[in-house]
Formats: sequence, C-alpha cells, structure tokens
Amino acid sequence: MDKKPVLFTSLSPALLHLYDISNSIVVIIDILRATSTITTALYNGAKSVIPVDSVSRCIELGKQIDGITAGERDGQIAEGLSYGNSPFEYPESFIKGKTLVLTTTNGTKLLHMALEKGANEIIIGAFTNLSFVCDYLIRSNKNVMLGCAAWKDRVNLEDTLFAGAVITRIKEHFNISCDSSHLAESLYREAAGDLFGFLKKNDASHYHRLMNFNLEKDIRYCLTIDNANVLPVYRNGRLVKE
Amino acid sequence: MDKKPVLFTSLSPALLHLYDISNSIVVIIDILRATSTITTALYNGAKSVIPVDSVSRCIELGKQIDGITAGERDGQIAEGLSYGNSPFEYPESFIKGKTLVLTTTNGTKLLHMALEKGANEIIIGAFTNLSFVCDYLIRSNKNVMLGCAAWKDRVNLEDTLFAGAVITRIKEHFNISCDSSHLAESLYREAAGDLFGFLKKNDASHYHRLMNFNLEKDIRYCLTIDNANVLPVYRNGRLVKE
Repeated sequence: MDKKPVLFTSLSPALLHLYDISNSIVVIIDILRATSTITTALYNGAKSVIPVDSVSRCIELGKQIDGITAGERDGQIAEGLSYGNSPFEYPESFIKGKTLVLTTTNGTKLLHMALEKGANEIIIGAFTNLSFVCDYLIRSNKNVMLGCAAWKDRVNLEDTLFAGAVITRIKEHFNISCDSSHLAESLYREAAGDLFGFLKKNDASHYHRLMNFNLEKDIRYCLTIDNANVLPVYRNGRLVKE
Repeated sequence: MDKKPVLFTSLSPALLHLYDISNSIVVIIDILRATSTITTALYNGAKSVIPVDSVSRCIELGKQIDGITAGERDGQIAEGLSYGNSPFEYPESFIKGKTLVLTTTNGTKLLHMALEKGANEIIIGAFTNLSFVCDYLIRSNKNVMLGCAAWKDRVNLEDTLFAGAVITRIKEHFNISCDSSHLAESLYREAAGDLFGFLKKNDASHYHRLMNFNLEKDIRYCLTIDNANVLPVYRNGRLVKE
C-alpha cells in the first residue's frame, strides 16, 4: 500500500482556496524578494522575523518591541519604514540578535492566508535555502503545499521555478497528482542551467520591475542556491530558525 | 512607436478577474473536451452550439428549440441529457443542420464568466482548430486573452499547452508581458513533439480521469492539430461559424 504523503502546488494566492491545507506543511515562496530576504536575515543571526500584513501594523509593532521595520510596496521601500526588502540590507554586522518586522506586497499576505486556512505548519522557502527546505520536507513525511506568492495574484516565473526545483529534488518521496506541480517541474527543467538567463530571456515581469530599480545584484543573489541555509519556521507569530 | 496589441493568458477561471478584458478577444480553451467538441460539431455542419451553464437550463432550452441536449459533469454524460461531450458523438451524418445545447463542467462556465466581464469578443479555441484561431487573432489585431477553462479552477496541462501553442505561433504580432504566457510557451516547447506522450508521462490529472473512462481515442483526437478547422464565434447567445 502506497503511504507517501501528497504534494500540491498553488501557483497564486488566488488559487489557494482550492486546496485543503489543514494537514499540510505550507511552503511560502516569494523569491523576489521576501522569502530570500527572510532566510538571509535569519542566517545572518536575526533573532526572529515577524511578518505583518500592513505598513501601519509594521510601524506600530516596530515601536512596541524595538524591532527593525522593513518592507516594500510595489518593489520599493514603503513610506514610514526604515528598511526595504533587499537581502543585502541585512548583513550579520547589522541584523545579528535583532528582530525584523517585515511587510511585503505578496509574501506576507500569502503567509497570513495560509494561517487563516489552518495550515498545519508554515515554513519559508527560497533558492537561498533550497536544500534545507527539501531535507525538511522529506524528513517530515507530511503532506506538502508549495505556495507561490506570485505578483498581486498573477502567476510569476520565479516562484513557479522554485516550486519546480523542490519537486525535482523530492518527488520520489511524494504522490504528486497535480498539474501545477508538473508544470512547475517542466519549467524548472528548461531553466535550471541558467535561472537568471531564463528570467531575462522571457522578460519575466518582476525581473523587469526590479531591473528598472537597478537591482540586478539582488536578483542574482535570490537565484543562488543554498547561500543562506537555514529553515525559517513560523511559531507563535514569528519566523525563527528551526 | 510600438502599436502591437497585448496578449495575456489566464491559467484558471479563478484568475480571470485580474485582467481587464473589455477590449479583448477572449479565447475559451477547454481541450478535454468542450472546445474540441464544439469545433468538431460546427465543422461537421451543426447550425449552432448554445453553451448553457446548467443541466436544467440545457434540458429546458433543448425542449424549446428542439435542439440536441448534451453535456457532462465530472467527465461523464450528465443525467437527463441525451448526449455527452465526446467529439465522436457528432459526425456530419448526425449533427448537420442541427442545434446543439451544451453544458460542461468548466468550458461553458468560463464562457459565461467572460460574458459577464464584458469581453469584446469570444471565440473558441482547441488544437482541432489551432490554425484558424491563430489566423483570426493575427488578422483582428486586437488585444487577446487566452482563457484556460482548467479543471474546477485548478490549472491543467492540456489547456496551458494550447495557450503555449497559440503563443508560439503568433507572438511576433503581440506585446506579451505576462509570465503565465511565458510559462505556457515554455511548457509547449517541451511537449510539442508528442502531446499525448507528454500528458501520459506527467500523468496529467484530466488525462488520467478520461483514460479511466476508456477515452484514449478522445484524448488523441483532441490533441490533433487542425482536424476541424472552423472558427466558432459567440454571437447573440450562440456559437456559430465565423
């Protein structure tokens, strides 16, 4: 009898409601740049990252706990916050021992949706911690939902590519009867050799948006595998290292 | 100055609301099997096809106009209707000169959504009429929305592949700044040589569902390019040949 857990991929927050995630680990995926930045901050010694869904809540909470307020709207630092959503803003020399209060356009929104839908567990995935995510999912032996944050609910290439990278590595351990997962895997197969080149060639919409802000360095970092290997898990309102 | 029209792809009806389609031709795509069957019925001489969104409406209208009631729910003939959703049920000897009243799980639902959202024009696309669809879209020189009917709002491979086939053929004529379109094109690039083999290899969920009903012949037909070249357009409540 086949007892493998199941794996699904939701390509957009607007599709998450189609799936029952109450028995699943939900992997929040927002490659450019929320989940890459969260893994980096924790890897560099941040005590925790608190994801909040609005700028006003970010400011309020930042004051209360003396945390660092950070976040973006439409790819730029949101008004009233001190820092943005670039992994390069959070080196060890700055972030070690501190708490980051973060709000982003898509990633933190999806995390709160997963919470409301009663996800069994929530973890953070990015190319920066790909191996840790895959190892954890195999080890846990639970159902998995790969949740792409997308861009304002529109499917994007970079989050889909990450889902494909995870599936490529762990598929033998899961039952995958989900066309979105097959789609992601196929896309990754084509792009794996040169992720940056693939986004550029296809003029991926968010790649384009960030390039307009001179953020090529950020994009290249966010597409690098295993340069911030930690596993952020959501516990009691905070993302902390597992 | 670049005056090309724009092209977008909506991978699921649950994503259609993200786009303004009031100035667009919407291509309804439901490869297995609604749009393949509609093109086939019209190619074989049906006077028109009336898409309705419920079984009860199908029965009622069928009586009123002495039409042929047909449709499926979950891949099988719906109770109370005379025929199903297989293209092989509608040869010329049977369907010529008749009106088909059709309701299906996903395709007719998407068509009614596109109507409600004020689509400028609605046409029907399938591999069976790929060339006619592409020629029409190039000739029209209007904005295009490729609307995948999906499966109960879950993205599927076969509709995405068809979007990719269209994009591959017509992309020089459009501005495409849409990651879903790039995704579809990439998928089609991988699968184009053997569409049936690709669905089989990936155990596409609807492929699987139909194979369980012994419908391999239907699937192979629905993946054959240009075997029913007509252009169904929606006018005054009916799908007719352009």
